[in-house]
This record gives sequence, structure tokens and C-alpha cells, in this order.
Amino acid sequence: MGRIKAQTVASIVGAIINDYEGGKTIDYVNSFDKPHKAEIVTIVEKLLKVIYPGYFRDKSLRFYNPATSLTSLVEDIIYNLNKQVRLALPYDPAYAGATDDELDEASEGIVTEFFEKIPFIREYVETDLEAAYEGDPAAGGREEIILAYPGLMASTVNRLAHELYLLKVPLIPRLMTEHAHTVTGIDIHPGATLGRYFFIDHGTGIVIGESTVIGDHVKIYQGVTLGALSTRGGNKLKNLKRHPTIEDNVTIYSGASILGGETVIGEGSVIGGNVFITKSVPSHTTVSVKNQELIFKNSSDKSLKKSEIEQDEAWYYVI
Amino acid sequence: MGRIKAQTVASIVGAIINDYEGGKTIDYVNSFDKPHKAEIVTIVEKLLKVIYPGYFRDKSLRFYNPATSLTSLVEDIIYNLNKQVRLALPYDPAYAGATDDELDEASEGIVTEFFEKIPFIREYVETDLEAAYEGDPAAGGREEIILAYPGLMASTVNRLAHELYLLKVPLIPRLMTEHAHTVTGIDIHPGATLGRYFFIDHGTGIVIGESTVIGDHVKIYQGVTLGALSTRGGNKLKNLKRHPTIEDNVTIYSGASILGGETVIGEGSVIGGNVFITKSVPSHTTVSVKNQELIFKNSSDKSLKKSEIEQDEAWYYVI
Amino acid sequence: MGRIKAQTVASIVGAIINDYEGGKTIDYVNSFDKPHKAEIVTIVEKLLKVIYPGYFRDKSLRFYNPATSLTSLVEDIIYNLNKQVRLALPYDPAYAGATDDELDEASEGIVTEFFEKIPFIREYVETDLEAAYEGDPAAGGREEIILAYPGLMASTVNRLAHELYLLKVPLIPRLMTEHAHTVTGIDIHPGATLGRYFFIDHGTGIVIGESTVIGDHVKIYQGVTLGALSTRGGNKLKNLKRHPTIEDNVTIYSGASILGGETVIGEGSVIGGNVFITKSVPSHTTVSVKNQELIFKNSSDKSLKKSEIEQDEAWYYVI
Repeated sequence: MGRIKAQTVASIVGAIINDYEGGKTIDYVNSFDKPHKAEIVTIVEKLLKVIYPGYFRDKSLRFYNPATSLTSLVEDIIYNLNKQVRLALPYDPAYAGATDDELDEASEGIVTEFFEKIPFIREYVETDLEAAYEGDPAAGGREEIILAYPGLMASTVNRLAHELYLLKVPLIPRLMTEHAHTVTGIDIHPGATLGRYFFIDHGTGIVIGESTVIGDHVKIYQGVTLGALSTRGGNKLKNLKRHPTIEDNVTIYSGASILGGETVIGEGSVIGGNVFITKSVPSHTTVSVKNQELIFKNSSDKSLKKSEIEQDEAWYYVI
Repeated sequence: MGRIKAQTVASIVGAIINDYEGGKTIDYVNSFDKPHKAEIVTIVEKLLKVIYPGYFRDKSLRFYNPATSLTSLVEDIIYNLNKQVRLALPYDPAYAGATDDELDEASEGIVTEFFEKIPFIREYVETDLEAAYEGDPAAGGREEIILAYPGLMASTVNRLAHELYLLKVPLIPRLMTEHAHTVTGIDIHPGATLGRYFFIDHGTGIVIGESTVIGDHVKIYQGVTLGALSTRGGNKLKNLKRHPTIEDNVTIYSGASILGGETVIGEGSVIGGNVFITKSVPSHTTVSVKNQELIFKNSSDKSLKKSEIEQDEAWYYVI
Repeated sequence: MGRIKAQTVASIVGAIINDYEGGKTIDYVNSFDKPHKAEIVTIVEKLLKVIYPGYFRDKSLRFYNPATSLTSLVEDIIYNLNKQVRLALPYDPAYAGATDDELDEASEGIVTEFFEKIPFIREYVETDLEAAYEGDPAAGGREEIILAYPGLMASTVNRLAHELYLLKVPLIPRLMTEHAHTVTGIDIHPGATLGRYFFIDHGTGIVIGESTVIGDHVKIYQGVTLGALSTRGGNKLKNLKRHPTIEDNVTIYSGASILGGETVIGEGSVIGGNVFITKSVPSHTTVSVKNQELIFKNSSDKSLKKSEIEQDEAWYYVI
């Protein structure tokens, strides 16, 4: 293999370095004054070990006393999360003019409060696990759900990130849920509020927006959007309730879209596959799409009798 | 950056350790007596090197004699897979009361049988590669398909996991296919049976359920669900046929849903984009959705002539 | 744990090695004469550090002078990309019969031209960032978009891969965009041409085909397909324009499919959620699906008044 001439390399590099002087947002920035994406991914993975102790062990580490190993794990997360939160806080305009000491103090307070929430988060996660076990005939057991189900991972990371979101930490909550999105294909904004016994099956393509509120015992299948209506307002709509409210015991089958900040799906309702809803639905209602009109053509000589092709009139789910 | 006080850390850690005494499923478990997720991901990656020798090499390893390097690779997988299968077997109630020796023997038998299937798996994988090359006008060549096509990766991992599923190994098959789901966005349960010349294009959002049976020369596009009807039965429906049968030479275009354990799509049929099917379809039938009624509005003064906006009457695919 | 007998292992390995003699495409190949997938993923990650200097730093590296660190980064990419391009070129039949020197020269020319495009790519990426900030009410700031938004990552990788595609490099462009697909769930073929101020929100399930052409200020939401019509022609359709053209200032809401090489969505048009289009749409047109006919059933005694369930007549987006 030939080598590119040193002069050519110098000229290429020079052009790129020059380009960083162009006054763009993406021009050179000091990387040491902002939260570090890879570090936050590491923190998420360590937090999952705290939530599910013993399930996601390190390959190399052999230990006997759980208290010892968990103590060192938690201390490690406290140290690193505090560092990242401290770097993130200046991105919140509320801290404009804060001294270093004030930022230190705020960060420590946030991290302490966050860790105090861990037992409550674990209480909720336990209910999600139970809901998945009860709800999925394909589940081989609770271990399989903890180790393999993307829905449980996505909701657990949301529950962790949501606490930091409530503590008004910039950047980090979204980096946490975006990691879960990469791994699971499930996109839950850290602002979304999830009730107990929350169950997502399959999950790829699910989008749950920032101001969504979800009650207890809610089930959601792949491809569901809990979204906003038009974004014509763009960044000006920030901080409004733009996403729906889902009350207790609601099931939403695959591909359904429920849109709008004033839309409430009443308790016990069931939203069928591919239903598109922009207004509230009263309690204990099932909503389904009227059957598609399908066109059947037979490429052989044999013509189709209606009875061969007729689809059910009723009420379909996709699971 | 400030440091959180040692006393605060101790109190945080204490509260979490205490919480592990709460009798929850997710409380502390011994991580050394169960299959290890990261190890199973490593095994999958090594198995792909066995299936496609020379395509996914290690960065650091330089070798000349394929037999030498492949021997050591296969030996390594045998050792590690045997270890994981041995840890997984006690999760199957059928092994309740089995002695350590019996579990050892069962595990060794399973791993041996699994490896004897590798040539058959490779025979099927070769047909999938051929189907992808024939079926995709964007394919730059067979190498591009092996190295870059998510569909081929997902079906290869399913073929591997399915053999372990048939050998009744708990946990591991699902952990294998869930790894493929993370990488590809394609969710194929290890229970699903795939015929020869199986081709998935794009693939994100595809869900193929546990008891699905798919014939030869079947093509599936992104967003397709081969699913079950209502799960109201939850975990009680375990082991029933809940998912459809797709016969030979069927093509299923993007976004279609085919549901139910008694649903059979007959040989040579074509299911159009977004079609929703819950009953069987006879052989050699094309099924399409009647055209959507679309509403066109023009924001300029110019009004729309029908000819400008009319969509084809016919029969659309999404590819 | 028991150990599998050495004899059994030898017999397993022998059967697999034998199987590599079977004349299949996937039989043993020399891995050192083809592009290396993991290396190309590394190159993509390094290129993102060049595009967004300071945002994706290494964990271990501490530096003070950006010019120093970026020079060594760019030199490293030049060296490794040149190596991979040189390995890829023989896969293009146009280089059949080329001497090693000619391949060396071609590869160096391509890599040099590619790097000369970096400032232009960065100019476009800056416009994408601006479009995302303006378009998304949930955006916490530009840093959050750079660090966490999958749409920006997918379009940035497409812009990089597209330049190598235009320089007719085999294999590598598709490996680059497939890496982005794995991370983001967004599948943009390297052949697709993206205009300035391109914004993808959420993004999971988006498929954008090889010959798609997209103008400036276009917004696309999750689950959108810009695809081809039937593939009955398979690999024979190679190099035809099979995918649509999207003119400036078009917005395409979630789940919409726009199909066919002659389909043009005119300037300023808006395509609503789940719309399915196979013919051109004139400028400044909004296209929406006529309201679904929904069926509401109430499981309680209370019957539903029409006013409780009526959905808007109008024109819905999913965001």
C-alpha cells in the first residue's frame, strides 16, 4: 500500500483546522468542561447493576460479600455522577453567575437526593418485572425478563433519568435515555412519568414524549407513539404539556398513535392496533379501527370465495 | 469540584444495601450461578466468525492457516457455551432434582448436538445470502450483504438460537436473539422456524413471534409483525401456537401485520404494505389495502386539478 | 462442571473444517484482503470527532492544544481509511486488471478528495444542528442535540458516507451507514442525497433509499419510508432512480410512505402521518388521510355520547 504524501496530509489537516475558526456552533470547544457521553453510558450501566444486584456482573470481578462489592460500586457512581452533574449544571441558565462553590454544593445536593430515590425506583422496577411476567406468554421466567427484555431496560433507565430530570439536571437525563434508545429502539423522553406495573412488549419504534403521564398497570406494544400535535411552534412550545395522559389499566396495541397534551385515555380503556387518536377517550372504552377494505386477487384460475378471504369483523390487537 | 461527605456516602450506601433485604425478585442474587449476558454476546459474535469464516476477524490476530485458527476458535466456544448451558439448565423445571453429574452430562450432550448442526445452519445461511443478493437492487455484492445487512445477521442468529431452543436450553436462546434485536432492530423469537432462502430487507421494527413457521423463499420488509391476537390469557397461553404460518414463496411488504396461530398465508401469496390480516389467505393471492382516501389542500391560490393528485388505483408495495 | 471429551471436540471441529470445503460463498476466505468492519466503525467514530471537535473525546486522553490533538487524529484517519479504501477498490469491476500501483494511486486520490470535502460537510452539519434546535420544543440546547440526537448522528454519517459513495468506493459507504443504522434505528442509504437544514426527529424505523434526493429545510419523523415500488426486478434494477425526490421545505410526519422514482413532493408541501403516496404532489400542498372510522365500545353501562368520542375532522400530525 502506498502512503499519502506528508505534504498532502499537512494541507488536508491545515484546511480542517482553519475551518474550525469559522464561527460555527460545532467549531472547536473545550471537551473538558462538558458532560462526557461515554462516561454517562458507563454510569447508566453501573446503575443497572445497583438496581438488579447480581444480574449484570463484571466479567473479571469475583466477589463473595455483596455488601463489599456494592459499596464500592455505589461509591464509584456517586463520585462520577457528581463530576458529570457538576459539569452539566452551568448549561442551566438558572445557574448563571453561580460561584464554583455554589455549583459544587448544588451538584452534591442533587446527587444525594438522587441516590435517596434508589429504593423507591427499585420498588417501581419490581412492579414492572411482575407486569412483564404476568403479561407475556412467551416469557421463560423472571430471569429471562431481567436479562433480555428491552422494555424493562428502557423503563428502568427512564425511571433513573426521570429523577435527575425532576432535579433539573441539564443534558444528562437525555443522554441516559438516548443510550436506552440505542440499545432497545424504545425512545422515552426522561420527562415522561411512568406509573407502576408498566409493561412494554417488543418495543421497537415506541416514542413517548416529554410531558406524557402514564398511570399504573399500563401495557404498550411495539410502534406506539404517545406524541404531540403539530410542531409548527418549534422551540417556543417548550415546557407546555404537549403529550397525552394515559390513566390506570390502559392497554395500547401496536402501531397506535395517541396525540396531544389535552388527550386523556380514561381508566381501563383498550386502544387497538394502528388506531390514531387526537381526543380524549372515556374510561372503560375499547377503540378499534373499522376493518380495512382489502383487495384480494388470485393469480391462478381459481377464483376466491368470500368465505375464504373474509376477515373478522371485530376487534384486533397486534402483539 | 467538591466531594460528597464520607458520612453521606455511607448513609446512601446503607439505605441501598438495606433495601436489598426487602424480599423482592430483584434483590441480591448470586451472580455466579446464572448465565452471564455479556458472555453470551461474546459467544454469538464468535459463532458468527464460525459461520462466516474470514469475514469478522479479530483486529489483533494475524493467522495464515485457517484450520489452526478455527480450531482454537471452536474449542473456545465449546468451552464457554458448555459453561453457560450448564448454568442455564437448572432454570428448566424438568431438571429439578438432577445431580451435578446429570446436569454436566446433559449440558455436554446439548453442546455436542448443537455443534453437529453447524454445517446444516451454514447450508441455510448460504441460501439466505443468495436470496438477499437476488432480491435487492441496492446490493453492491455478496460481501456487502454479509458485512452490512442487518436482515442476514438477524436470521443467522435466529438459526443458531433456534437449535438451542429446540434442545430446550433455558434463557440462552432468548439472550442471543435479543442481542441481534439490539444490533438490528429486528425481533425474531428463537422459537420461530425459518425456511431456506429467507430475506429480510431493511428490517427495523420487524417482530416475529415464538410459534411462527415460515417456509422457503419468503421475503419480509421493515415494520412487519407476525404476531398473536389478544394476550388476555397472558402467561397461561404459554406453549400454544399463537403466531401465523407463512408458506413458500410469500412476500410481505412493509408495515403489514399477520396475526393468530391459525392464520396461514398460502404459497406464492403477496401481502401488500400496511395490510392487517387475522385469517388465512389462499395460495397465489395478492392482498392489498383499498386506496386511502387522502385529503389534499393547497395553501397557494392555485387549486388542484384531480389529475395532479390522483394516486394509482392499484396495488402498492413499500420496499 | 464437566469437560467435553477431547475426541468429541476434535470430531466437531473436523466436521466444521470439512464443511468449509463445500464450495459455498460463505466458505473460508482470507480475511486480510477485504475491508474490515470493526475498523470502519472506528473510522466513523473518529470522523465524528473531526466533525464535532471537542464533543466526543477519548476517555483517557488529556490535551490542551486542539491543533496538536486534531492533527494526530486526522493523520490517523487518513492512514487507516486509505488502507481500507485500498482493500475495497478491487471489489469494483472497473478496477479489474489494475496494477497494485494503480490501485495505490486511486486510493490515495480518493482519500485526499474525501478529506477536502470535510469543511463542506461541516457547513451542512451546522445547518442540520440549527434545524434540529429550531424544530424541536423538547431540545434542551444545542449541546444536547449534538450529544444525544440520533437524527443528527444518522445524517452526519450519511453526509460522510455519501462523499465516499460519490467517489465510487465499494463496500465502505454502506458499512458506515449501517453502523449509524445500528446505533440510531435510522436506515439512510449512502446513495441518498440530503439538502441543508435536514431534521429527523426520533427517527426509529426511518428508511431512505439509495436514489432519494432531498432538498433544503426538510423535516422527517419516525417510521417514514422514502422507498421504491415493487422489487420484482431485483438486482436488475440496479442504478435506476427508484426512490422519490423531496423538494425544499417539505415536512413528512410519522409513518408516512412515499414511493417510486418518479414521485416528486413539491416545495413547501406537508405530508401527514401514515399517508401513503405513490405519485407526485404539487408544491404547497398538505396531504392527510381521511379520518379513520373508529369503533368505540364501552364495557360499562354508560353508553357513549358522540361528543365524548368524536375525533377532530382535520389534519393530524404525529410528532
